Amino acid sequence: MQQISGGVTAAKGFKAAATAAHIKYEGRDDMALVYSCVPAKVAGVFTKNIVKAAPVQWDKAIVKNQEFAQAVVLNSGIANACTSKKGLAANETMAQAVADELSIPLQSVLTASTGVIGMSLPVDRAVKGISALVPQLSDTEEAGLKAAEAIMTTDTISKQCAVQFEWEGHTITVGGMSKGSGMIHPDMATMLAVVTTDIAISKELLQEVVRTDVDYSFNMISVDRDTSTNDSLMVFANGEAGNAEITTKNEGYEKFVEAYSTVTRTLAKIMASDGEGATKLFETTIIHAKSHADAVTLSKSVITSNLVKTAIYGNDANWGRIICALGYSGVEFDPEIVDLYIESEGNKLKLVENGMATDYSEDEATKILSASHVTAIADIKAGIETATAWGCDLTYDYVKINGDYRS
Amino acid sequence: MQQISGGVTAAKGFKAAATAAHIKYEGRDDMALVYSCVPAKVAGVFTKNIVKAAPVQWDKAIVKNQEFAQAVVLNSGIANACTSKKGLAANETMAQAVADELSIPLQSVLTASTGVIGMSLPVDRAVKGISALVPQLSDTEEAGLKAAEAIMTTDTISKQCAVQFEWEGHTITVGGMSKGSGMIHPDMATMLAVVTTDIAISKELLQEVVRTDVDYSFNMISVDRDTSTNDSLMVFANGEAGNAEITTKNEGYEKFVEAYSTVTRTLAKIMASDGEGATKLFETTIIHAKSHADAVTLSKSVITSNLVKTAIYGNDANWGRIICALGYSGVEFDPEIVDLYIESEGNKLKLVENGMATDYSEDEATKILSASHVTAIADIKAGIETATAWGCDLTYDYVKINGDYRS
Repeated sequence: MQQISGGVTAAKGFKAAATAAHIKYEGRDDMALVYSCVPAKVAGVFTKNIVKAAPVQWDKAIVKNQEFAQAVVLNSGIANACTSKKGLAANETMAQAVADELSIPLQSVLTASTGVIGMSLPVDRAVKGISALVPQLSDTEEAGLKAAEAIMTTDTISKQCAVQFEWEGHTITVGGMSKGSGMIHPDMATMLAVVTTDIAISKELLQEVVRTDVDYSFNMISVDRDTSTNDSLMVFANGEAGNAEITTKNEGYEKFVEAYSTVTRTLAKIMASDGEGATKLFETTIIHAKSHADAVTLSKSVITSNLVKTAIYGNDANWGRIICALGYSGVEFDPEIVDLYIESEGNKLKLVENGMATDYSEDEATKILSASHVTAIADIKAGIETATAWGCDLTYDYVKINGDYRS
Repeated sequence: MQQISGGVTAAKGFKAAATAAHIKYEGRDDMALVYSCVPAKVAGVFTKNIVKAAPVQWDKAIVKNQEFAQAVVLNSGIANACTSKKGLAANETMAQAVADELSIPLQSVLTASTGVIGMSLPVDRAVKGISALVPQLSDTEEAGLKAAEAIMTTDTISKQCAVQFEWEGHTITVGGMSKGSGMIHPDMATMLAVVTTDIAISKELLQEVVRTDVDYSFNMISVDRDTSTNDSLMVFANGEAGNAEITTKNEGYEKFVEAYSTVTRTLAKIMASDGEGATKLFETTIIHAKSHADAVTLSKSVITSNLVKTAIYGNDANWGRIICALGYSGVEFDPEIVDLYIESEGNKLKLVENGMATDYSEDEATKILSASHVTAIADIKAGIETATAWGCDLTYDYVKINGDYRS
């Protein structure tokens, strides 16, 4: 398996386009379209927030009931959430416009919106945008990049990843894009992500891969512990690689799982490191937990603690806050035997041994914490399970961005 | 019942003192002692964090096993948490010094520490501090105030409250002090609080009052969703008011509950409004919930959301974030029938009706949100239960304080 450049247009038979539809922003692209030249097996996972945006309600029904889909239209600026029946109607109008322009069935068009909650989607502009998108559809790397840029809100960098592997003489590609910087604490999916692949695989196995993987990738990141109303991960597999369709968990399946999880984990980590106002990626690994569920809960408790996040911003080895966050997580463990390490750029330092401070050097700790990717490792000494969660520091800029996001 | 000035020395037979023991801070008082002239019924609740500071472990045993206690010694600067056996020994030395100086049993001395986790308590300084505290013990209002000031860490104001009521010819007083500004998300108690009362009441009824009330007072506030290792609420009832001891839920009991809950709620609200970096108190009331537990979960989900807290800081009526926080709380409800109001200084504005925006005036909303005490009210329309939680906004200063707290 190797990483290649590109995103949603990397796999065979996928095209993308972006346009400025003036949904809310001015002077930038704010709509994107991703299209498979042939019907593709479709899978997806969506937010568990009880308040579900109109596009989430629409997509869930399609992923549940349809084997194939062929396009997804996305907009930034307005989330089309808390908009009731009017929002559902606007969403369907958008999907219908895509179906008409591409001459494909309405039920093969997914939708995704991200931005301010509660505002109405300007349907006329969206429909005009779709008319502009379709003629621009292209399978170039540039088209994929433009789509990834069009769905950004407070993101500071666009998020793409693609990998390739060989199997039985076929080159199989998996590529994806995502967005998300605030209101990021995915619960069953990330803010918005589209993954495309040219592998031939059954719908059931595809959905199983997507469903299983999300608990190790997007569901392990958090920027602000706020689970969005719009979280959506949509996956298209169009079979254009030419392999015999995968219907059992054979070697090709294993290779695909590895490639797919590389794409999702890479996108997830970029999202955490580009959290609103973040200056660094903060990773926490729990080792020797009694169960995987314990390890997940413990690692997430650390990366979501505001006190830990501000200490990480200040390059301050205030390890008591990490131990405190482990302690209130709800997981039973013996704090008196815990070891704690910090690590970056190949340097590792033990701060805590058996629940108490070692005589570590504060200078060395500060140096390790000053890197752009910092990891904390807690050894619980209770079993054999492990988990890793990704977050970011909490900074002045987070407050700045969110004290005045709407205007 | 009427509010009076003062705190822990307001009730008859209670004395307090403060001193600068140089535990960690320089140039300010950092130790306090509260003393009852006669043995007092003792009750308390403590943190549920698995990582429990040495004084918490000490106090829990006393509250469980002893009917009476007579003193509590408190220090700020160092939390004496994550200090293992050495910390327990230091704590006991401190308690023993108090017992010796006051000629009271060791088992009637409670302890409390607050400050940095993981640092060792300088026992010699603490013992010297205790020698300085005892001769200064005084029942004046000033002595109570000095004690409240000595236990402050990042607090910007000292926190006291006292009330009085008459019953069967006796004047009964309840007074208290607390501290807490960061790592505030109490789970069974607040950071540190001491309540003194001269009522005569049985230990069982006292503990029941304390235990029941905390879920409506200290456990309903949050500054940063971080539950401390040191949360402690300690209550002393010394019977000096001269009333016949309360052993049943009679009229005197009801009056005491009202007075006690006034003190705890007042202290809790001051703590929330003095949250680290906070510019305002942010209250959320849920009405018409299906159950009280639902109302509690929903109200806490709103006041702990970083996105809501930053919007409140920015005086931005970004109600979508409030609805979103209700949605991911885990409580089942119908978002399409929810109404949402904001209120301050007697002005009330409906932002959301049946899940969608009303045509409210943004100017009026901004004006309401600009007050120093802002309330959000969500009508869930699912039942008859209600709950109120108190928090604060998330500001640049929170990041500033916590990016560099240790130094």
